[in-house]
Amino acid sequence: MDFNLTEDQQAFADVASQFAAASLAPYAAEWDATHTFPRDTIREAGELGFCGLYTPEEAGGLGLSRLDSSIIFEQLAMGCTTTTAMLTIHNMATWMIATWGRKEVKDKWVADLVSGEKLASYCLTEPGAGSDAASLATRAVKHQGSYQLNGSKVFISGAGSTDMLVVMARTSDDGAKGISAFAVPADLPGIIYGKAEEKMGWNAQPTRMITFDNVTVTAEHLLGEEGQGFSLAMKGLDGGRINIATCSVGTAQQALNTARDYMLERQQFGKPLAAFQALQFKLADMNTHLVAARQLVRMAAFKLDNNDPQATAYCAMAKRFATDTGFEVCNEALQIHGGYGYIKEYPLERHMRDVRVHQILEGTNEIMRLIISRQVLQEGTELL
Amino acid sequence: MDFNLTEDQQAFADVASQFAAASLAPYAAEWDATHTFPRDTIREAGELGFCGLYTPEEAGGLGLSRLDSSIIFEQLAMGCTTTTAMLTIHNMATWMIATWGRKEVKDKWVADLVSGEKLASYCLTEPGAGSDAASLATRAVKHQGSYQLNGSKVFISGAGSTDMLVVMARTSDDGAKGISAFAVPADLPGIIYGKAEEKMGWNAQPTRMITFDNVTVTAEHLLGEEGQGFSLAMKGLDGGRINIATCSVGTAQQALNTARDYMLERQQFGKPLAAFQALQFKLADMNTHLVAARQLVRMAAFKLDNNDPQATAYCAMAKRFATDTGFEVCNEALQIHGGYGYIKEYPLERHMRDVRVHQILEGTNEIMRLIISRQVLQEGTELL
Amino acid sequence: MDFNLTEDQQAFADVASQFAAASLAPYAAEWDATHTFPRDTIREAGELGFCGLYTPEEAGGLGLSRLDSSIIFEQLAMGCTTTTAMLTIHNMATWMIATWGRKEVKDKWVADLVSGEKLASYCLTEPGAGSDAASLATRAVKHQGSYQLNGSKVFISGAGSTDMLVVMARTSDDGAKGISAFAVPADLPGIIYGKAEEKMGWNAQPTRMITFDNVTVTAEHLLGEEGQGFSLAMKGLDGGRINIATCSVGTAQQALNTARDYMLERQQFGKPLAAFQALQFKLADMNTHLVAARQLVRMAAFKLDNNDPQATAYCAMAKRFATDTGFEVCNEALQIHGGYGYIKEYPLERHMRDVRVHQILEGTNEIMRLIISRQVLQEGTELL
Amino acid sequence: MDFNLTEDQQAFADVASQFAAASLAPYAAEWDATHTFPRDTIREAGELGFCGLYTPEEAGGLGLSRLDSSIIFEQLAMGCTTTTAMLTIHNMATWMIATWGRKEVKDKWVADLVSGEKLASYCLTEPGAGSDAASLATRAVKHQGSYQLNGSKVFISGAGSTDMLVVMARTSDDGAKGISAFAVPADLPGIIYGKAEEKMGWNAQPTRMITFDNVTVTAEHLLGEEGQGFSLAMKGLDGGRINIATCSVGTAQQALNTARDYMLERQQFGKPLAAFQALQFKLADMNTHLVAARQLVRMAAFKLDNNDPQATAYCAMAKRFATDTGFEVCNEALQIHGGYGYIKEYPLERHMRDVRVHQILEGTNEIMRLIISRQVLQEGTELL
Repeated sequence: MDFNLTEDQQAFADVASQFAAASLAPYAAEWDATHTFPRDTIREAGELGFCGLYTPEEAGGLGLSRLDSSIIFEQLAMGCTTTTAMLTIHNMATWMIATWGRKEVKDKWVADLVSGEKLASYCLTEPGAGSDAASLATRAVKHQGSYQLNGSKVFISGAGSTDMLVVMARTSDDGAKGISAFAVPADLPGIIYGKAEEKMGWNAQPTRMITFDNVTVTAEHLLGEEGQGFSLAMKGLDGGRINIATCSVGTAQQALNTARDYMLERQQFGKPLAAFQALQFKLADMNTHLVAARQLVRMAAFKLDNNDPQATAYCAMAKRFATDTGFEVCNEALQIHGGYGYIKEYPLERHMRDVRVHQILEGTNEIMRLIISRQVLQEGTELL
Repeated sequence: MDFNLTEDQQAFADVASQFAAASLAPYAAEWDATHTFPRDTIREAGELGFCGLYTPEEAGGLGLSRLDSSIIFEQLAMGCTTTTAMLTIHNMATWMIATWGRKEVKDKWVADLVSGEKLASYCLTEPGAGSDAASLATRAVKHQGSYQLNGSKVFISGAGSTDMLVVMARTSDDGAKGISAFAVPADLPGIIYGKAEEKMGWNAQPTRMITFDNVTVTAEHLLGEEGQGFSLAMKGLDGGRINIATCSVGTAQQALNTARDYMLERQQFGKPLAAFQALQFKLADMNTHLVAARQLVRMAAFKLDNNDPQATAYCAMAKRFATDTGFEVCNEALQIHGGYGYIKEYPLERHMRDVRVHQILEGTNEIMRLIISRQVLQEGTELL
Repeated sequence: MDFNLTEDQQAFADVASQFAAASLAPYAAEWDATHTFPRDTIREAGELGFCGLYTPEEAGGLGLSRLDSSIIFEQLAMGCTTTTAMLTIHNMATWMIATWGRKEVKDKWVADLVSGEKLASYCLTEPGAGSDAASLATRAVKHQGSYQLNGSKVFISGAGSTDMLVVMARTSDDGAKGISAFAVPADLPGIIYGKAEEKMGWNAQPTRMITFDNVTVTAEHLLGEEGQGFSLAMKGLDGGRINIATCSVGTAQQALNTARDYMLERQQFGKPLAAFQALQFKLADMNTHLVAARQLVRMAAFKLDNNDPQATAYCAMAKRFATDTGFEVCNEALQIHGGYGYIKEYPLERHMRDVRVHQILEGTNEIMRLIISRQVLQEGTELL
Repeated sequence: MDFNLTEDQQAFADVASQFAAASLAPYAAEWDATHTFPRDTIREAGELGFCGLYTPEEAGGLGLSRLDSSIIFEQLAMGCTTTTAMLTIHNMATWMIATWGRKEVKDKWVADLVSGEKLASYCLTEPGAGSDAASLATRAVKHQGSYQLNGSKVFISGAGSTDMLVVMARTSDDGAKGISAFAVPADLPGIIYGKAEEKMGWNAQPTRMITFDNVTVTAEHLLGEEGQGFSLAMKGLDGGRINIATCSVGTAQQALNTARDYMLERQQFGKPLAAFQALQFKLADMNTHLVAARQLVRMAAFKLDNNDPQATAYCAMAKRFATDTGFEVCNEALQIHGGYGYIKEYPLERHMRDVRVHQILEGTNEIMRLIISRQVLQEGTELL
């Protein structure tokens, strides 16, 4: 076992940290307030490789591990939670296309996706089906070498501002096995974008419903094989859960640092807040839980990198624990700031609003518990 | 002991409930989105007596008890948290003026405050002094029968849209005993209003800094006697804490009702959410904690009504427990809604943003713990 | 609403408090260590009326309300948790016999039960059926004017040291409706007592399995009518849950008082523990939660006294909240004592061991959540 | 980073697991019930190297890392918490003597300590000084080449059944810098052993007060130099905290496994407990928190092995988090067993009683929070 970062990991983290400090943090509050999608900043992130972190090198990505990627995303999230979350979704979709896409699609798209010139969204959730694959209703009907898509997807991050959609659609009625994955160019005729959802947070990226009304894609836009879609979606989500958990860890670390500095500075009753024992204890617990969360995320990433048969359960544990911890740390950091935590002049309330959705998406934390308990009940826990 | 509402209390609650359903709930989301202060709606509330609930009858108020008032405010908060919170602050300030104001001030102001024709703000907190009375720096210097006020107050609810300010200012250097309370007309020369703070929630009321730059009020604007200000402020806050706790209870009840209905309606995996045991248990705990919180609030109000020597500690317990519980219930109700909880089309995220500040203001919940522990350590707990 | 005790309630509480201080508290540790069932002390309690608190006056009981009884039991539990819990079970069984017993049985037994001369146990739980009435397997077969009982009951408090057993047995296969209740003299032929269970706590009362091997009782030992047994059992349990919740509140209050005194006394780093803010906050939260728990218990008792249709749900909420809170308060009080909390020279570890079972018996707290959620989902929450 | 065990670590764990299953688990309940100190079993453990795991090889130990040792102790704790805890204390004391002892003492003692032929206790805590070094009152006065010890130590694990005592005593009045460490043979004249403390758990090892009444040891019994004692004690405790945290993790894993098996087996309402979603979620959270706790413990051990300057804070975080988690997991596992969790026929209540003290000893978890917050406030958190 080794709990130290490698030199490479440290170097990646430093680059990410500098980018976060220079190009994300100074603008995050404004992007939130004005609901701005920082398209150009994402392109800059692409120049540093952050749009294809775990896309294979042969496809033009950096070919990093999930663990490496988590270390990088954590630093980025310290600068802007929402932009980093969008980046992680784009990374996931890009990796799926680069891994399971057919040559024509890869040749046409992957280089631009990896560079950040083009962006991708991930389209799984439907109005009537949150985490329940069997009830997915979007259909892709094969006809003369093409697929015709009909149906609706909701809560699609980036929708309307991205160029490529990874879409799960039903090609047969065979439950989860009847689902296939498609790479669908975002500007095809028949793709209708809903209004930008007004959200609690994650305001630096648009979220919209997408309706597919007789959208036609040629057969080479299939990812993997027919019927593999749910399996690919879940593989994407294992990594997606690590990513979103990472965004919580990074944001919470930022909130914790801010709270610590505030405690050293702010005076009450003639002493700095840092002198009050109850606040010291709170800070200690925030730090402890955050360190534990980070390790769990990295352990899950490591297991995914090593094709551990329990990786899915570990990703679920990491997602559940780190997003809950992330929220609690941000919430406590807000409380430490008192009234200043509640106003937008300080970043705390934004941190809290932004991480709140992490407990919900990529499978709610309730779904995570189902996945974890299934593993524990069916196969027991690996003890070592 | 009797845990039933009286017929009168039930009748008041019904009126409040109808007003909340008809005049608050339909507009609350819009007021939040557009940062609208519903001045006219508050006037309508005044017509029903809601602007002077516990102001004495001889001063034109309804002369109700704190317990009665809590029952009414709870219903109102089910319609709009923020507007109700503003109403409670106005009630508190009005009661202070009606109780400790001099005849001239009462004659001129109380009827209009009670009717809601005029509104009042409560000005205690300063930039450098959250809960620390001894460090209050706003000064009122007596000179030729008038007081000249200088200093700044922050986080003043309603500031800029209210007509009267209840201001705590230092008339001598004798710590908490050097503070006096004043009724200060809000449009006096030298009163400078800061920009409207951008906040996480409570958007249906403005919050501003107020600076007093050589503001002169005649001596009859003193409330009570010189040096009594901190004592009056604390008496106001005992009730203020019950009020704000009540706003959390009402909002959380609304969130719980919404979550319950959603569970009965929303299908996942072929069953309503209500069929999933883990969600049932969550709902059970939300309900249990909320019932406990409501009783604690009412018990504290009862003790305040009866001049119980431990009333301050009970108000602190009620405020601590009910605002924490209120936040947790709203947060869980949001989670039950999944992605729909995070968007503004549903009220959950607003409920959560609005109640979050209740854990901070009228004395943070950390200050509540100080008050409670002091009571327990010094005098023990009354067992019965 | 009225949150004050009546003079009568205060007087009852005083008597109970004196009895607890004089006759329970000084011996509780020894009874625990030596596994002594304080039979004589219970008889003394009977002399004060504590064996038939809510048994009707016409049957020789005090005819008090459940609320009165809770006030009394709370004081007793401050002296000895386990003995008080046994008393509450005896009160419940006595009340059932006095209420639904036939004249012959009442004439023969109730006076002695009320005086504490005889004691009663409550026999519902079976090895294969914790909270699942439909699977109760003990059978009572009617034959020539008598019933013949066969089956086993587990975790029976007092078993082997009591004189009367209230037994739920199946008289038909019609699920919950096939269950009947019987008053069974404890020394009948065919009643076999298992070994005294070794338990974590509750050591001042024996807990045994009881096996009924062709035990014959005449028909007048039926309580109520055939098929009413489950309904009677549940009526008993509503009150039983208030009682056990009360035992947690009383014990936790005792633990809290002990911790408070210790904090004032024990010095560390040159100051009393009471001077450390983190411990002050802990004490504040313990006190707050305990006050909330007590009110919830009393509210549930009040609703039961008033035949409120939601009484069962309120009893479940009170039991869930008060037994969880009771455990947590005892556990924190232990922690405040450091190493001294862990040794038997101090009462903290006993308090914690004793209240732990309250989260399990009379329906586990998981079953409580089922009851509560059923109410909330089916009928909503009464708001006022 | 690498989260996999090495082959050697796996092999050590297997040996420990087999020893735990064969020589500890079958007897643990009886040792608890009869308060038996399994002296012979500890000697057998010594034969496998478990009495000198991290004692340097040159001194006859296995020279393993703290991380290796934690992996081994965790497996042992699955068999018997208390015996393993005693082993860890013995390991700590043995390591201190082997590291800082003078040649004469090492030659005479270390081989026997490493083999388990002799056992050692660690004597820091005093009646008036829990975690407050400055107030240590036991004195060692130098006189003609010897030290004369006077004073009392409390809560000494193994006392009366061990052969060597590592004793912290004051050699000057210079606060923490006035403390020195001594290796004191346990049978010297003037050493008086108190009665065996009656405890909640940890019954398979004696705990006693030790009084030193003019006990004389020659100067070569000093460990390190005069005035280094507190520093050595703290170095011992860093590892001691990892050890005790490990004992919580192992015990909780055992409790979790037991609960899982019970859920698969036990039927209620016609289904196994494993089919109830609320219990599934509980199991999922238990598992998640336990995995997080284990990683935090191993990370702290790794940092200690690598002389990381933040190692003390990481040990404190691991101890705080893992002992709290361990208690909660055992407590929940008990609850899942219902009534069976409360009786001694099942191991759950013993697991819970045994791990409870881990939140208290080797520095209470409150002291851990002080250590952690000091680190965070003074030096910030290392982010990577």
